This record gives sequence, C-alpha cells and structure tokens, in this order.
Amino acid sequence: MSEPSLHALIEALRRLPGVGVKSAQRMAFHLLQHDREGALKLANALSGAVASVHHCERCHTFSERALCEVCADTRRDASKLAVVETPADQAALERTGSYRGYYFVLMGRLSPLDGVGVRDIGVAELLERAADPAVEEVILALGFSAEGEATAHALAQALRARGKAVTRLARGVPVGSELEYVDLSTIAHALSDRR
Amino acid sequence: MSEPSLHALIEALRRLPGVGVKSAQRMAFHLLQHDREGALKLANALSGAVASVHHCERCHTFSERALCEVCADTRRDASKLAVVETPADQAALERTGSYRGYYFVLMGRLSPLDGVGVRDIGVAELLERAADPAVEEVILALGFSAEGEATAHALAQALRARGKAVTRLARGVPVGSELEYVDLSTIAHALSDRR
Repeated sequence: MSEPSLHALIEALRRLPGVGVKSAQRMAFHLLQHDREGALKLANALSGAVASVHHCERCHTFSERALCEVCADTRRDASKLAVVETPADQAALERTGSYRGYYFVLMGRLSPLDGVGVRDIGVAELLERAADPAVEEVILALGFSAEGEATAHALAQALRARGKAVTRLARGVPVGSELEYVDLSTIAHALSDRR
Repeated sequence: MSEPSLHALIEALRRLPGVGVKSAQRMAFHLLQHDREGALKLANALSGAVASVHHCERCHTFSERALCEVCADTRRDASKLAVVETPADQAALERTGSYRGYYFVLMGRLSPLDGVGVRDIGVAELLERAADPAVEEVILALGFSAEGEATAHALAQALRARGKAVTRLARGVPVGSELEYVDLSTIAHALSDRR
C-alpha cells in the first residue's frame, strides 16, 4: 500500500480492540469506498468524545459532567453501593430495574498477566467512596471469570478490613435454561447455595 | 448510556463493517479508558484519508494522486491488464512478484442480492480502459466465490464481444496442501485442467 494516508488509516484502525490487519483494511476500504460520510462522522465523534467524556468524580464511570446522572440522583438508596467492572455491566444492572443504590465502576479488573494491578482499577478511590458512613453494604457485582473472582476477593478483603458488609451476586442456574446444558461448576454452585 | 458524546461515538463505530453494538461499546470504552491518543490519531487518520484518498483515473484503485503508483510506472507490461476485486487482491498479486502488467480494480463485484449491479463496479470504465490497443490480454483475477464467478462471466462476455482475449486464474490444488484435505470441487477442476 503506497498511499501514506490510507496506510495511516489502516494503522490507526488496528489500534481498536479485536481489529487485526485484515479487518482494518476491510474497514478502511469500506469507509473510503462506500461511507465517507460515516468516516467523517466517526472522526468527529472520536474527537468530540475525547474532548468531553471524563470520569464521574464519585463513581468513576464515564461522564460529561463532574457527577454522572446516577450519582447526581439524590433519590437513590445511599445505603447500597454496587461495584461493577465496566459501564456496560452497570447498564445491565440498571436495565434489570431491581437495583436502586449507587455504583462504583472499576473500569477494569485485576489482571496481573496484563499488568493491571490494584492501582489501575481505582481501589483507593473505591475505599474512599465506601468510607461514606451512609454506605451499609457493598455489593460486588463482578463477573465470575478467574480475573473477576480475583478482583472480588481482593476488594472484599480490603472492604471487610474497614468494617464494611460485603456481598456478591448469587451464582446459579441462569433463568430459562435447561439443567442439562448448564456447565457442571455452575450446577455445583447452585446446589451449595440452594435456598 | 446518558452521555451524548459517548453515545454518538458508539453509533459511529457501529457503521464499521463487522462491528455490532457490543464491539462498538468495547471499542469506545477501550479508547476512552486506555488509548485517548489512539482515538485522536484515528480521528485525524479518518479525516486525512477522506480528504486525500481518491481513485486512480486509470485503474480505479485508491490513490492520492491522479495516477496510482502502478499506473504511473511506464516500465510495466502494457499488453496485460489484470482485473481484481479489491486493492487487497491487487496487493496479493503484487506480492507474488510474478505479474508485471497493469491492473483494473473493480472495487467490488456483482452482487444482485446486495443491489450491486454492473454500473456500481465500474464496468464501463473497465471496457474503456481495455479498449486501449496496447492491451492484448485481460486476466480476470477474481475470486472463485459465486459472486466472483458471476462477475467474471459478465466481464468475459462484454470483453470478448469487443474482441479482447480474456483469461482467468487457474483453479486447482493449493500449493503445499494434501489432496485428502482439498474440497472435491477443487480436485475436480484440477483434474479437468490438468497439464
């Protein structure tokens, strides 16, 4: 590819997660051939978001204002603080409509292999946030991957050492699923946590 | 997601081919959390490429100048014109080092189901280019997918009607492959085209 600006575009697209050289080429060709308007929209959206999206002072999620919409809502239940990994996880919890407390968004999880340690996921900020005397229960709503488990373990220790009540999401059989298709470790957990 | 500029970024990323709402979210979060510099680079690369990448007047591939590097090279063999679907296919042919003629890049292929007809893939421009008396042989270097075959068939008809010699890439067993793992229709073609 001898065109420098096309080459630069392909290289820039490769920095997106999950995009290799073939996909980056396909994206660049598609945008230049069929969707130049979309390419300019994306360019504007990128610089717009970089300029205006920051982190909520209180819960660390992405926000354009000092406090995000959830943290700014004073009608929520201040006694509960749910710790989630990402804004997407927060959105999933919100969609259930069954949680009315506040959140703390780690924006990541411990991942020693990728060099993500306790400092990178804002543990100090979480401890500071949880020190609010109004917070009675910290709900660790982390995934049940190995890394999510490790993060939950580390956070639970630190929070309990500071006298906070810590709970985790229940592990069990997903709603609507047939037992025979559920993996064995999930069934074992559902059995030991039966109620 | 209540942040308008984050929402706009996710929507803009979804216009990329092969990117759904979950990948777009993941990309947006990644850029804003870990790679704001990459986001700005991508924004600049997009507007830079849209501003400066056009089509080569002669072969239709992406080019920043009126003639692309290949078409501007007068030392190539003007008697051969290879028709390819995309700049990526052209690059693959170039890498073989065994073709020294010129190219015509369709920037697509016939695909009636997606509404891509003869006008969209520059057939008129190809016929005009092939009308150059120096061109003795048009090599249809298209893929052997159903759509590639249909495109090759339509182009061969139109070119032969204008008295041009038309050839296609040989179909056969890929170099380095074991016969038992090659699909049967490829073996059948390799058998009938044996030499």
